Amino acid sequence: MGSSVGRLFRVTTFGESHGPAIGVIIEGCPPGLTLDLEQLQLDLDRRRPGQSDLTTSRQESDRVELLSGLFEGQTTGTPIALLIRNKDAHSRSYDGVKELYRPGHGDATYMARYGLRDYRGGGRASARETAARVAAGGVARQWLSARYGIEVIAWVDQVSAHRAKIDPNTVTHAEVEAQLTRCPDHEYHLLFDSLIRTAKEEGDTLGGVIGGVARGVPAGWGAPVFDKLEADLAKACLSLPACKGFEVGSGFDGVTLRGSQHNDEWTPPKNPTNRPGAVIPTTNTNRAGGVLAGISTGAPITIRAAFKPVSTHFKTQATITHSGEPVLFQNEGRHDPCVLPRAVPLVEAAMSLTLMDHALQTLALDRGYD
Amino acid sequence: MGSSVGRLFRVTTFGESHGPAIGVIIEGCPPGLTLDLEQLQLDLDRRRPGQSDLTTSRQESDRVELLSGLFEGQTTGTPIALLIRNKDAHSRSYDGVKELYRPGHGDATYMARYGLRDYRGGGRASARETAARVAAGGVARQWLSARYGIEVIAWVDQVSAHRAKIDPNTVTHAEVEAQLTRCPDHEYHLLFDSLIRTAKEEGDTLGGVIGGVARGVPAGWGAPVFDKLEADLAKACLSLPACKGFEVGSGFDGVTLRGSQHNDEWTPPKNPTNRPGAVIPTTNTNRAGGVLAGISTGAPITIRAAFKPVSTHFKTQATITHSGEPVLFQNEGRHDPCVLPRAVPLVEAAMSLTLMDHALQTLALDRGYD
Amino acid sequence: MGSSVGRLFRVTTFGESHGPAIGVIIEGCPPGLTLDLEQLQLDLDRRRPGQSDLTTSRQESDRVELLSGLFEGQTTGTPIALLIRNKDAHSRSYDGVKELYRPGHGDATYMARYGLRDYRGGGRASARETAARVAAGGVARQWLSARYGIEVIAWVDQVSAHRAKIDPNTVTHAEVEAQLTRCPDHEYHLLFDSLIRTAKEEGDTLGGVIGGVARGVPAGWGAPVFDKLEADLAKACLSLPACKGFEVGSGFDGVTLRGSQHNDEWTPPKNPTNRPGAVIPTTNTNRAGGVLAGISTGAPITIRAAFKPVSTHFKTQATITHSGEPVLFQNEGRHDPCVLPRAVPLVEAAMSLTLMDHALQTLALDRGYD
Amino acid sequence: MGSSVGRLFRVTTFGESHGPAIGVIIEGCPPGLTLDLEQLQLDLDRRRPGQSDLTTSRQESDRVELLSGLFEGQTTGTPIALLIRNKDAHSRSYDGVKELYRPGHGDATYMARYGLRDYRGGGRASARETAARVAAGGVARQWLSARYGIEVIAWVDQVSAHRAKIDPNTVTHAEVEAQLTRCPDHEYHLLFDSLIRTAKEEGDTLGGVIGGVARGVPAGWGAPVFDKLEADLAKACLSLPACKGFEVGSGFDGVTLRGSQHNDEWTPPKNPTNRPGAVIPTTNTNRAGGVLAGISTGAPITIRAAFKPVSTHFKTQATITHSGEPVLFQNEGRHDPCVLPRAVPLVEAAMSLTLMDHALQTLALDRGYD
Repeated sequence: MGSSVGRLFRVTTFGESHGPAIGVIIEGCPPGLTLDLEQLQLDLDRRRPGQSDLTTSRQESDRVELLSGLFEGQTTGTPIALLIRNKDAHSRSYDGVKELYRPGHGDATYMARYGLRDYRGGGRASARETAARVAAGGVARQWLSARYGIEVIAWVDQVSAHRAKIDPNTVTHAEVEAQLTRCPDHEYHLLFDSLIRTAKEEGDTLGGVIGGVARGVPAGWGAPVFDKLEADLAKACLSLPACKGFEVGSGFDGVTLRGSQHNDEWTPPKNPTNRPGAVIPTTNTNRAGGVLAGISTGAPITIRAAFKPVSTHFKTQATITHSGEPVLFQNEGRHDPCVLPRAVPLVEAAMSLTLMDHALQTLALDRGYD
Repeated sequence: MGSSVGRLFRVTTFGESHGPAIGVIIEGCPPGLTLDLEQLQLDLDRRRPGQSDLTTSRQESDRVELLSGLFEGQTTGTPIALLIRNKDAHSRSYDGVKELYRPGHGDATYMARYGLRDYRGGGRASARETAARVAAGGVARQWLSARYGIEVIAWVDQVSAHRAKIDPNTVTHAEVEAQLTRCPDHEYHLLFDSLIRTAKEEGDTLGGVIGGVARGVPAGWGAPVFDKLEADLAKACLSLPACKGFEVGSGFDGVTLRGSQHNDEWTPPKNPTNRPGAVIPTTNTNRAGGVLAGISTGAPITIRAAFKPVSTHFKTQATITHSGEPVLFQNEGRHDPCVLPRAVPLVEAAMSLTLMDHALQTLALDRGYD
Repeated sequence: MGSSVGRLFRVTTFGESHGPAIGVIIEGCPPGLTLDLEQLQLDLDRRRPGQSDLTTSRQESDRVELLSGLFEGQTTGTPIALLIRNKDAHSRSYDGVKELYRPGHGDATYMARYGLRDYRGGGRASARETAARVAAGGVARQWLSARYGIEVIAWVDQVSAHRAKIDPNTVTHAEVEAQLTRCPDHEYHLLFDSLIRTAKEEGDTLGGVIGGVARGVPAGWGAPVFDKLEADLAKACLSLPACKGFEVGSGFDGVTLRGSQHNDEWTPPKNPTNRPGAVIPTTNTNRAGGVLAGISTGAPITIRAAFKPVSTHFKTQATITHSGEPVLFQNEGRHDPCVLPRAVPLVEAAMSLTLMDHALQTLALDRGYD
Repeated sequence: MGSSVGRLFRVTTFGESHGPAIGVIIEGCPPGLTLDLEQLQLDLDRRRPGQSDLTTSRQESDRVELLSGLFEGQTTGTPIALLIRNKDAHSRSYDGVKELYRPGHGDATYMARYGLRDYRGGGRASARETAARVAAGGVARQWLSARYGIEVIAWVDQVSAHRAKIDPNTVTHAEVEAQLTRCPDHEYHLLFDSLIRTAKEEGDTLGGVIGGVARGVPAGWGAPVFDKLEADLAKACLSLPACKGFEVGSGFDGVTLRGSQHNDEWTPPKNPTNRPGAVIPTTNTNRAGGVLAGISTGAPITIRAAFKPVSTHFKTQATITHSGEPVLFQNEGRHDPCVLPRAVPLVEAAMSLTLMDHALQTLALDRGYD
């Protein structure tokens, strides 16, 4: 399967890179949300190619068309379908790649799985598919904001071995968007900008890490055992193209601490609410990253997602053809030297989709105080 | 929800730390598997407390009872139910913890989610629940081995900041089990053993990283987009207690490479099989970690999972009570100073459950050559 | 698959007729429900064999043991596991049936599906499995009653070609239970009692129809398109052993009416509630059976479920052996001449499980007035 | 939820009657199927309005556009998206119905569920939605035919109280399509034709029953307990607009037989295949309707589905407005006097979708002989 995610806020995408269109159906969006379609388009614009000279120069306008689920500006509770036509489908020749497997790409694994493949631009494996996720994530984000005041913000945290210093408690969306690199730390922005331009000149590519935070998530979202909130966030991130790692809170660095250093001590809540049963505490530190035992603590949820260097570089590579002949191969065309700036809206979408699904699951618990 | 995992090999667990029992129902196990119940018991023995002086001295025999799904030694295709009675339920006093939230544990988040909680030994949030996963993982592992010859092996790869050097292509189960620490590198085993004993003496706890590999997974398992194989592995690991990070293949370190350094070049297969459509290539390197675009390459699948230091240490901690009063708190009793040695079978179970579910999903593709 | 049902109130059963035990795990029960375990046992007692001389004389005490999910008498929101041991497992010889396919039973279809089968008492196909559903349905019923005041009542509506006249708007649980046949119309009770005794004497069996009603279901439960409330009720009933038909409201008889006769006209509500958007009307007639377009109207939900005559009769039957040899075959032992009286709690369970799942799905809609 | 169906052949539909478009995404179609798009269009043509003077005279061309999942004429294993534009959206006035609840329709129940509704042509509750199901069912049907030689045929079996005599073992698709009423019995065709024309003249509507058969389904498809094949067929039928009843095999009539009359005796197979374990028998009679204990026997699967008279007739009806005022109401425009002829492809789609999903589930069982 693979093209659906979510139990209650259920998102199903379709489309190949060079087919007629890509799109998404969203089931389970609560009725009565005033959906801002212009904001959805802005979300897509942040992801689309050609937005700056740090990204691929290929142009796709990525206009989103709403096909269902809205009436007089409000969601009706029925499926929301969003369609994005592919502009330049069928426009180029694939003679160079249709019979060989590009290293680092899904060409060979799709062939192994399905016995045939749509070789045009990566087919279903193309990162173009993420436009549909970003659109769906935009709907989730609008609901999370309208219903709970939740902010979901991601940024470029690291390029290659260089890690910026960003405070997830205070970083703003505007600070991120102010920089072409989407690194809100101006000093590191300059460094990353320079690194990316150099790699581009050299025909090579870079990896890095996206940081993300969700602020305003109430305590109590998530689930025990298999569907822990952090587990679903990890899955959402690792399902993004090129993602090879995930951490929440202290993550891999946290393993070097001792338990007495790592635990966040509980303190009385600043704004006690009238919950049944008990007072819900807060913490002054947040090594947990806003989750304990799979459930949100009320502190900001902080994650990091690692993205490998883009597989499409312009150096010569060895590979084989479909029939097994070794060949040398070199990419052509226009490609991102570093996917990180364009991956920021993807991580935001991944987080938003996950949080919204858990929000609805929490409502279904019928706790009596939502 | 949270207590179920898998689409076709569907595992549902139940039970609290100090309730009458824990257990698991497994749906979707193919018929005709000769199930080795003694081997299942051995898997549980590797997880159970009290197995060595590096772990908690609490004793649980963890005898597994099979209630259904087997007939004359073979699986019938109907649900397999496994039951593990809790030995010492109700035997100790919880007066010290029933009214307060232990830092680093799910006490407060469960209260926030449910409005009430079973405070005895952590209730459903207890790591005792993982015995049920290990049992289910053991069934999956037997099938993966019998049907495809797949080996799933995990080991202690890092304790605190010290990382061993283990080759995932060659490490054996016997090498792991030969060491109490379950680090198959003898030099690091000695170091880890010493670190853990020191922490125990000091009443403190340590974190670390488990490494894991699955060898023999055929090319073509996994899925595009949302249910990528690496995404499901990430979710399976992050759903383990205390896990805060996951990486596949080159992971977080890989982001420092350039694309031209990172891609694994394709080479002709050593043992070409008669697949429809095309020859499936192999690689000499494996920075991908055995997955590309969500689908297995045929190379070993290599992962790492980060575990925070155990939250139950014996230093004084600040917290609050259910009614919001700040209190100082100190744990008592017997607990693991480092969960890593006992986490090894958990990661193997997480990997085995994920792989088996994808194996069955692949069969449903009806490719004609399974 | 097949052993799970429900999206949010998720029930998974296990167990064979002559294995060690049967049981069920219930995920998704909201926290805070005070669960009456004695009532659960009473539900099981209504289903168990040997309860009267109209049913099989086989004795099973069917004592239910709760293994998890309850703390201090209240549900915790974590899985509820219920276990029922089989008393007389392995106690009789199956030499007569192990190598042949009983007509009307699942012996041959299980063999076709799985390639092997547990022939003891029908294995997983045995109606003994329904004890687990009844237990789960009992939990759902308690919640529906406590949370919404919903009553779910079923009764024997028809035996063979004789149909009683029961008013679903007024029939009571006590009236049903007052009769051994579970037909609340005394005249028809006497007839059914006589028919069943005669069939029993003749070594033959009877079929019939169960009627069911759910009163107090609020308007607005259900779903459009594929998961219509009546569709889920149909599936729940057809998944009961021996069920061959289902109808809601006017059902098969309703097709003989004209549209102008069939439509229920809308009238102003008797007790208007403060719903957003609009007044929700009521009807004076109920040919719809409480559902329109997949969603409850607020009127009683009325269904009928047809059960074929019990396949285990005592006349000689022709069949074949596993190796294909034709043989004559005659059942022995103790069996129900008519399953209808014992099917009443099954239909109630089927309805309760379906309604509870839709109740929780409705809460997840976040309509703001639940 | 409600807009998705299927576990492995997963169909998700979207769209309102008078929104821009309706459509469907199909996940899980095996790769390598040569998809006949013209045949898909023919399936839609059988459902579309305006096809004869027995149906509504409204014209919709219902041209289906394929957006993804096909490459060089073959399915790729990735989602198949099909889009059908609505031609005359927004073209008429809804002033007469926007503020009132039409009896027999979902107007009031949608309002109760969602707090708002798209009143244009019934919105999501419109039978227009079924075009998407028919398209998806057409894909399933092509695969069932290509892979297993299965035929799925439905017909008009009954109009009002008049039941035709059709033999499900021999009826052909051509015989059904030869008659405008889609009743393959010519004598009853003439009667039904006359009944429908009379009702149309009188401004009233009729109900009836669709019969359906699937021939060529191998023994062993289905599942125990909750997901019985007949249960999923029942759900698929009851999820069709206006369906109020379902029966399989002997159905409601079968309850009047005795067990000794009802059981189908097993006979040796005509064409024994080399299945592991045992010979799979056949029957000379088929009161079971091709299923026993939830699993196919190999005999034709026979069902009947009851459809109430169309709710939109032209007599005066009483109802209330959104604000609770009683009003008299009369439909205008063009509507079907009897939905039965156009419901035939719907029942075929419902059966095909159900069977295909079970086919894939059976493959996932890994029985070794598929």
